[in-house]
Amino acid sequence: MSTASKGLEGVVVAETTISHVDGDEGVLIYGGYFIEDLAENSTFEEVCHLLWYGALPNQSQLDVLKKRLNDGMHVDASVIDVVRRVAKGHPMASLRTAVSALSSTDPDAEDMSPEANDRKAIRLTGQAITLTAAIERIRNGQEPIEPRADLSLAANLMYMMKGEEPHDVAERIIDAALILHAEHGMNASTFAARVTAGTLADMHSAITSAIGALKGPLHGGANEQVMHMLMEIDGPDTAAQWVRDRLAAGEKIMGFGHRVYKTLDPRAPILKALAEKLSGKGGDTRWLQISEQIQTTMREEMDKKGKKVYPNVDFFSASVYYTLGIPLDLFTNLFACARMSGWTAHVMEQLKDNRLIRPNSNYIGPKDLTVKPIAQRG
Amino acid sequence: MSTASKGLEGVVVAETTISHVDGDEGVLIYGGYFIEDLAENSTFEEVCHLLWYGALPNQSQLDVLKKRLNDGMHVDASVIDVVRRVAKGHPMASLRTAVSALSSTDPDAEDMSPEANDRKAIRLTGQAITLTAAIERIRNGQEPIEPRADLSLAANLMYMMKGEEPHDVAERIIDAALILHAEHGMNASTFAARVTAGTLADMHSAITSAIGALKGPLHGGANEQVMHMLMEIDGPDTAAQWVRDRLAAGEKIMGFGHRVYKTLDPRAPILKALAEKLSGKGGDTRWLQISEQIQTTMREEMDKKGKKVYPNVDFFSASVYYTLGIPLDLFTNLFACARMSGWTAHVMEQLKDNRLIRPNSNYIGPKDLTVKPIAQRG
Repeated sequence: MSTASKGLEGVVVAETTISHVDGDEGVLIYGGYFIEDLAENSTFEEVCHLLWYGALPNQSQLDVLKKRLNDGMHVDASVIDVVRRVAKGHPMASLRTAVSALSSTDPDAEDMSPEANDRKAIRLTGQAITLTAAIERIRNGQEPIEPRADLSLAANLMYMMKGEEPHDVAERIIDAALILHAEHGMNASTFAARVTAGTLADMHSAITSAIGALKGPLHGGANEQVMHMLMEIDGPDTAAQWVRDRLAAGEKIMGFGHRVYKTLDPRAPILKALAEKLSGKGGDTRWLQISEQIQTTMREEMDKKGKKVYPNVDFFSASVYYTLGIPLDLFTNLFACARMSGWTAHVMEQLKDNRLIRPNSNYIGPKDLTVKPIAQRG
Repeated sequence: MSTASKGLEGVVVAETTISHVDGDEGVLIYGGYFIEDLAENSTFEEVCHLLWYGALPNQSQLDVLKKRLNDGMHVDASVIDVVRRVAKGHPMASLRTAVSALSSTDPDAEDMSPEANDRKAIRLTGQAITLTAAIERIRNGQEPIEPRADLSLAANLMYMMKGEEPHDVAERIIDAALILHAEHGMNASTFAARVTAGTLADMHSAITSAIGALKGPLHGGANEQVMHMLMEIDGPDTAAQWVRDRLAAGEKIMGFGHRVYKTLDPRAPILKALAEKLSGKGGDTRWLQISEQIQTTMREEMDKKGKKVYPNVDFFSASVYYTLGIPLDLFTNLFACARMSGWTAHVMEQLKDNRLIRPNSNYIGPKDLTVKPIAQRG
C-alpha cells in the first residue's frame, strides 16, 4: 500500500485539458491561453465556452451560448422560496442549499448523458448569479430582480443585486474577476466535485459539494478574511506598523502565500491593475493604498529574513469587491459564480473516463476488543 | 511530482482510529470491535458513542446520549417547508437540500469548536432520520410525524415513516442495518466530507458533500440497483437461468464484488441472517429465495472460470429493506441515516489535525495559444 501526505500535495489524480497551474513559474493557463491574455482580451462568457468546449467561440457560437446562459439564469419560484426560508444563514450556506434545491426543478436532474450535463452546466452558471443576487436582496428584505436579456452575466449580477446597471468600468472589473476565478486546476472544491461525480452522482450533487468546500476560509472564504484585515487598519499611514506588529507577534498576514504558487500568483497583478483602474474611476482609493503599503512592508520584512512571500488573488480581489459595494460576506458567493464554469467543466471531464475516487486510511487503533454487557463497562 | 491512479486506490490519506477495513481478510472493525460482535451485541446508539468518543458507553453515558439524540431529532418547520418545495425530486436530493438547509436553523452552524461540532454531529444524526421519514410522507401527500421520546432511533425511523411502531424483529433488523452501514473507512462519501472539512468549511457543508457523493449508483445508490434486478426476475425457479443469461451477455450482476473487499464482505452474511430471521417472522420469503439462488449460481459460474466473486452488503440489504416495506428509492436515504454517524466522526477527526486536501492534475493540453479577435476565429 502506497502512502501519501494527508494533504495529497503533488499527487496527480487526473489528466486534464481544462487548465494548467504552474506554481513554480507563476503561470496559469486555461485551455491553452495565458490568464493575462484572457483577462485582457476575452469575456467571461467566452471563457465559459473555452472551459466547456475546449476552444474560444467564434461570433455565432458566442451568440448561441450567451442566449443559452441568459435563458439559464431563470430560477423557479419554488427555489426562491427555499432561499427565503434559509436566508438568515451565511450567504454561501444559502447558495449551497439553493443550488441543491435547483435539482428539483431541473428537467435533466437525474439524466447523466453528456447532453444533459451540458445543459445543466449552462443553467447552473446562470442560476448561481441569479441566486447570489437574490440571496443578497432577500436577506435585506428586498424582492429579487429578474435577469435582463440584454446584459452580460457580469452586468446582470450587479444589476440584480443593486437594481441598477453597473458603469462600464465596474462591469469590466466584475467580468475580469469572473474570468480570473473561473478555474484553477485540482483545487479543493473542484476535487470535492470530482470525488462526488466519481460515484456517478448527478451534477447538482457534485456542484453542491463544491460550494460547501469553497465556503471554507482556507479556500474561497479567504478574500473575506483579507477585507476584515484591511478594515482593522486605521489607514495607509499606519499599515506598515500594523504589519510589523503582527509579524512580531508571530501572526499570519491574510492574502499572502498560496498552496500551489511558490512565486507571484499571476492573478494578483491583474487584480491590482483593475483596482487602480477603479480608483481612477472615482472609487475609494483608501483600500488600494492600504493594500500597497501592506505589500511593500511584507516585501521589506521578508527580505530581512531572506524569504519571499507574494500576495495571492484574494489580496486584491477583496478591496476591489468592497469598493464596488459588494458586502464582505458575499465575496465567496462571487467566487462561486465564477468557479461554477470550472467546476462543471471538471465534472464533465471526470465523467468522460470515470473511476470511483476511493482512497485508503491507515487504522492506528486497537483491533481485539470484545463487546461487554453494558453493566460491566467502566 | 508523484503520480497515483486516478481512483487513488491504496493511497493513504489519513490515519484513523474510527474504523479498519481489511479488504484481503474480509474484516471490518469499528474502534477496536469486530462488526459481527457489534451487530449482535450492541445498538446503533452505542455504536454512535463508539464512533464519536472512541469507546462503547456505560449505562449512564448511553442514557445521556440517547436523550441528546432524541432531542436532536427535532427539525424546524422552516426546513420541513424546504422539503415540501423540493419533494418532487429524488429522496436523496431532498435529503441533501434539507440537511444543507438545517444549517440556517442550527445555533452552532458557523461555530468550528469541537464542542459545537459534537452537538452538530448528534443533531444531524437525529435529524437525518426525521427528515428521511418526512421526505417519504410529504412526497406521498401525508403530514410528517414528530419523533417519540420513548423510541430508539431505529424504531423512530419506522414509526415516523409508517405512523406505527415496528414489531420487535423489524426494529432489531433496522437497528442492525444502521450499525452495519454506520462506518466504512475512507469511502467516497466520507472522503468528500473530509475534503470539504479540510478547507475549514462548517459541518453542514461537509455532510452535504457526503450526501451528494453517497447518492451515486457506484456508492450508496447500489442497493437500489440490486432491488431493481431482483424485481426483474420472475421467481426463484428462473433466477439461475437469468443470471447465466446475463453473464453470457457480458453483463454485470448487481451486488457482487467491492472496491475494497477481495473476499467476503463481512456485512453480507450478517444481513443474510437478518433476512432469514425476517422470513421466519412471516416476511415475504420470495426475495431471500431469489437472492440465495443468484448467490449459488454466481458461485457455480465463477468456479467454472476459476474466479471468486462475493456478494457485498448491498446484495442482502436490498431485499431486507423491501420486505420491511421501505420503497426502493428510499434505500440510500437509510444508508445516509446510518453513515451520518461515521461521516461526522470523520469530520471531527479531520479537524483535530487538519490540512487542506488539495491534490494536483496533469495538464495535457496546449500551452501557447493567443486570443485572437473574435472575427478572426474559425
